Amino acid sequence: MDEFSFIHSIQPKYYRQSSTLKGIGDDGAVFRPPADMDIVTATDTMVQNIHFRLDTMEPEHIGYRALAANLSDLAAMGSIPISYFVSIVAPESWTHKKLKSIYKGMNQLASEYSMDLLGGDTVSGDQLVLSITVIGFVERERARYRHHAKEGDIVFVTGTLGDSALGYDLLTGDKYSIEDQDYFIQRHRMPQPRVSFSRQLKELDRLCFNDISDGISSEANEIAEASQVDVHIDYESLPVHPKMKTLPKKKQAKLVLSGGEDFELIGTVSEKDWPAVLMASKITNTNVAKIGYVRNKESKKPKVCLHEKGKIRVLKKEGYNHLR
Amino acid sequence: MDEFSFIHSIQPKYYRQSSTLKGIGDDGAVFRPPADMDIVTATDTMVQNIHFRLDTMEPEHIGYRALAANLSDLAAMGSIPISYFVSIVAPESWTHKKLKSIYKGMNQLASEYSMDLLGGDTVSGDQLVLSITVIGFVERERARYRHHAKEGDIVFVTGTLGDSALGYDLLTGDKYSIEDQDYFIQRHRMPQPRVSFSRQLKELDRLCFNDISDGISSEANEIAEASQVDVHIDYESLPVHPKMKTLPKKKQAKLVLSGGEDFELIGTVSEKDWPAVLMASKITNTNVAKIGYVRNKESKKPKVCLHEKGKIRVLKKEGYNHLR
Repeated sequence: MDEFSFIHSIQPKYYRQSSTLKGIGDDGAVFRPPADMDIVTATDTMVQNIHFRLDTMEPEHIGYRALAANLSDLAAMGSIPISYFVSIVAPESWTHKKLKSIYKGMNQLASEYSMDLLGGDTVSGDQLVLSITVIGFVERERARYRHHAKEGDIVFVTGTLGDSALGYDLLTGDKYSIEDQDYFIQRHRMPQPRVSFSRQLKELDRLCFNDISDGISSEANEIAEASQVDVHIDYESLPVHPKMKTLPKKKQAKLVLSGGEDFELIGTVSEKDWPAVLMASKITNTNVAKIGYVRNKESKKPKVCLHEKGKIRVLKKEGYNHLR
Repeated sequence: MDEFSFIHSIQPKYYRQSSTLKGIGDDGAVFRPPADMDIVTATDTMVQNIHFRLDTMEPEHIGYRALAANLSDLAAMGSIPISYFVSIVAPESWTHKKLKSIYKGMNQLASEYSMDLLGGDTVSGDQLVLSITVIGFVERERARYRHHAKEGDIVFVTGTLGDSALGYDLLTGDKYSIEDQDYFIQRHRMPQPRVSFSRQLKELDRLCFNDISDGISSEANEIAEASQVDVHIDYESLPVHPKMKTLPKKKQAKLVLSGGEDFELIGTVSEKDWPAVLMASKITNTNVAKIGYVRNKESKKPKVCLHEKGKIRVLKKEGYNHLR
């Protein structure tokens, strides 16, 4: 099977979005957004042995997780997922069957959100690289920016933190006498982007979101920097999965503060809008924890302060940094 | 310099498009297309030693040519280039200075078209991979599809054919006593996408375009298949650069028929609209050659027929096929 037949084999038989005018099969794809919507785009690239390992993931998981990472970006922008473009570089040893499994993993998530695969490239190379660009639509003036946090806001987070990092540790040989190991492994392989929760809040005038791909220390700092505010976080309020609480305290802290790729959302919202967040939590069955508050910055440089047992320390940007 | 500082260093100081609402620096980029425009997207991935070699290209050329390939797709769709997203996988041996040169090459072309760099990723890996996704706008019902060719259409092509392939041959050691070698090398390294020519024809109701990335044999076949017509091409009418005419006839034929990556356009248009094509050629200073015509298909399978010295042969899909 050559490239053309392969592309044909992964090409959708029909398109799910009414906005899609032309999918795969021409020099470009064409779509028509609704008149009152802005377009959101995000890109994410994953490289074998840097972002994933073939001994901890099946090809389906690689596809699923790569698209989940992009959907998490769309959720953090407050937008509806619409379509995606996939570029795969694969060693010649990757059979078409295995390559199709990557697309299958993506399609599992894409069909949940009625997203269309609109194009891409499959080329040969030394190392597996998966690069996805996603398109979302968002109502005008409702994109959720990092610079939207304000003094007095409540800081909250969805789900539980550090689960994915623990799943990865378990997959790569760390031994912990912990129950439900499969739960953590699943959270690593097939994270659930918080799209429905984010969309439930579309009526709010102002809302600040950031998705937790590099650990909450890093993401809270991004909000502080972008909004030029101080973010105060109460360590005891950070949501931890009950099974994780049996781990040594130090390990727990590392996972919760800088464990990457949970793809949960950290947000800030005014006190008056907090009930709406609680309602969205209930309607979409998404755990939400209030973890702190936003204050005008104390000094020139904005910062994140971690409160723990009466002590306060400045939380630095940590987490993943792939390029050195 | 870490990834964050590097991203900061390539981040545009201002945005050129009024449609750009948010560029680099959040979970996603946001833009607002004009109400009467559709969105066109295209993606292209280039891998070191598969699509380019470091001994024939400077980093600037790699960036320039990768974006040119994408702009050629936007031109073939009849659209205006607006923005682009860049994903680079680079070995650790690539310094930030060299990586910035790739962006510089892209920016040279992007600034010509007032395009905005809206996002992307720079991650480490074993082999240089450059993946670009572009966004264009096109007036409603004016996207130029491959399936728009009709019986009676004139087939035409822009520029001259095989120049880029000859440039590559010259760069990789082929010895030809040919003048102006630099011209062909430049055509290989810095091809000029036919955006202004394509846009000059935006008023035409119907126009079929395909960009010549895999050689005219391949692209004419794509039009024939998509439109379910036969495409007849007159070999003697194919535009060849005068300096190339000193090459052996057989070599010439190979370059002209299946030399890839010229990024010229092949198009078909009704006879009544042919004067508009000639006018666009004049206004945009783009050579255009009439090379054949479109006929209803003779048999079930559409085909491309090459006429040469009174003989007709069927021209098969040839050209590049990266995945084997």
